[in-house]
Amino acid sequence: MTRSLVFDGLQISNWNRETIEEIKRGQVNGIHATLAVWETPIEAIRNIADWNVLRNENPDLVSIACSADDIRSAADQDKVSVVLGFQNTSPFAQDYTLVEIFHQLGIRVAQLTYNIQNYVGGSCYDPQDSGLTRFGQRIVEEMNRVGMLIDLSHVGNKTSLEAIDASSRPVSITHANPLWFADTPRNKPDEVIDALVSRGGVIGACLYPNVIGGNSTSQDEFSAMVIKLVDKHGPEHVAIGSDMTRNWDQGYVNYLRDGRWKPAANASWPEWPSWFNSPEDFPKLADGLLKAGLSDSDLALVMGENWLNLFETSFSPLSELEGMATNNG
Amino acid sequence: MTRSLVFDGLQISNWNRETIEEIKRGQVNGIHATLAVWETPIEAIRNIADWNVLRNENPDLVSIACSADDIRSAADQDKVSVVLGFQNTSPFAQDYTLVEIFHQLGIRVAQLTYNIQNYVGGSCYDPQDSGLTRFGQRIVEEMNRVGMLIDLSHVGNKTSLEAIDASSRPVSITHANPLWFADTPRNKPDEVIDALVSRGGVIGACLYPNVIGGNSTSQDEFSAMVIKLVDKHGPEHVAIGSDMTRNWDQGYVNYLRDGRWKPAANASWPEWPSWFNSPEDFPKLADGLLKAGLSDSDLALVMGENWLNLFETSFSPLSELEGMATNNG
Repeated sequence: MTRSLVFDGLQISNWNRETIEEIKRGQVNGIHATLAVWETPIEAIRNIADWNVLRNENPDLVSIACSADDIRSAADQDKVSVVLGFQNTSPFAQDYTLVEIFHQLGIRVAQLTYNIQNYVGGSCYDPQDSGLTRFGQRIVEEMNRVGMLIDLSHVGNKTSLEAIDASSRPVSITHANPLWFADTPRNKPDEVIDALVSRGGVIGACLYPNVIGGNSTSQDEFSAMVIKLVDKHGPEHVAIGSDMTRNWDQGYVNYLRDGRWKPAANASWPEWPSWFNSPEDFPKLADGLLKAGLSDSDLALVMGENWLNLFETSFSPLSELEGMATNNG
Repeated sequence: MTRSLVFDGLQISNWNRETIEEIKRGQVNGIHATLAVWETPIEAIRNIADWNVLRNENPDLVSIACSADDIRSAADQDKVSVVLGFQNTSPFAQDYTLVEIFHQLGIRVAQLTYNIQNYVGGSCYDPQDSGLTRFGQRIVEEMNRVGMLIDLSHVGNKTSLEAIDASSRPVSITHANPLWFADTPRNKPDEVIDALVSRGGVIGACLYPNVIGGNSTSQDEFSAMVIKLVDKHGPEHVAIGSDMTRNWDQGYVNYLRDGRWKPAANASWPEWPSWFNSPEDFPKLADGLLKAGLSDSDLALVMGENWLNLFETSFSPLSELEGMATNNG
């Protein structure tokens, strides 16, 4: 019997040894880290190279995970696992063959769109959602083939529903909440969550201030939302994706919001709730869920095991997966 | 006892199923294929992606090999192995971290310079050879660390000697001849071959018309040169690197010669000797060496096993190699 691990479905920080040590102090065994939001192919590759350097210089602390097994063995060695991901398909440019290239480089998750429409489909902030484009269908098919998990967190609802339908494998919402919890385009209507869950997907409840209704929201309210999600959709489909941002200067929030698609507005970082403002608050988060009535076994699923179970079947090539199915069946 | 394999130390063709089938008909189990001569990082990545597509579409025929073991198991399945390589360090730009990135993408060999001086050092055609630069020393160190074989075929002699000295692992000349066989800047003085061999390296005798003294050179003369190399330097250090070019139009020879570093001259492809002008001529090449007096066991080394032995210790990260040494010692 393996011990249950804690895994955070999304963080986006200015990574260094210190930010990883915070995660370790928070007893978090692994995170899905964002390496690109607006990046072009070569910019994304350089961000991967930076992770290689960080791992090479901190072999005692950092492991880049390409599978659920990698995460479990790194945890046995007391290392923090990082699953590399993109919050945009901009690194694929208009070239489906770059999906396999980035899979070779360790990328295991990609969100179909960030905050504006792209070649693949519509974003949650677009007034008109194009739905999944022809290139988008190809990208979904190629991600399915090589073993790259589709993320719909910032994706428009129409595009999301069409992607769920097009995908032959379960998909994820790594960091968003239900719309009934906080009314923002970033949160998801029941229709999207239902469709995702019906295909075996996982949604990571998110702590970013903008998607919990602001930093005045209490921990009890957040915990109750998670438990309601578990009750509605089943404990195997709910997890955590904190969306934690660490160690950035003011300029980076402008980059996140505006990239270079418009002149940067004078954005500022939102203030996090007092009960969760660092990766070190993960144990507190778990305590709150327990206190609010989540069972021990469901807590283990929500705090990490659901991500690991999803990764188990998401990160290997379709051909190998079919091999497994044949061997088992 | 494994059977001995045939491996060609360099080919540079316009690859498709037909050009690979030629190789198979020539009873060649694997080749080192050039993916870049002048390419920038992103151009080189797209060439790798093209190889992925070719492999994905021809799984019965093509295997991309990352190790000597990969080559042996592909041969057992009657597939042609391709070791991916660059004839320039231009894909690394001025970024040493791209060495590891390209290793992750399957690149296992890189020639330090092509036909003009670059960030790393001097080419064989430069009237002044800078020697290995500071960046060049870093690239040698990084290639040593990740497990990428250094190739000196087109590299200047001063840079070559300094690279052999700087490298902690054996290096290669995948496709060139001794200067005493044909006097061209592309061929190597004894001093360079001696230094390479003293560190455990391998030289691939080359059939490209320009480095054998033109297409009037006879097969007997070529065979005698290979046997003299074996006698001088030992049978473990001599192999074949044909430099075969297939399926290109006239424009590509201009690209090879001039890239975009000067206006293209009106170059044309050289004519190959009648006794070796296709990968299908490999059995004839082996027969010639036997007839000229090479022993069966030395023939096996020269026709492929020396490359495989070199690859055995060249393609894994230095840390793993040190692990092996510790385990054995």
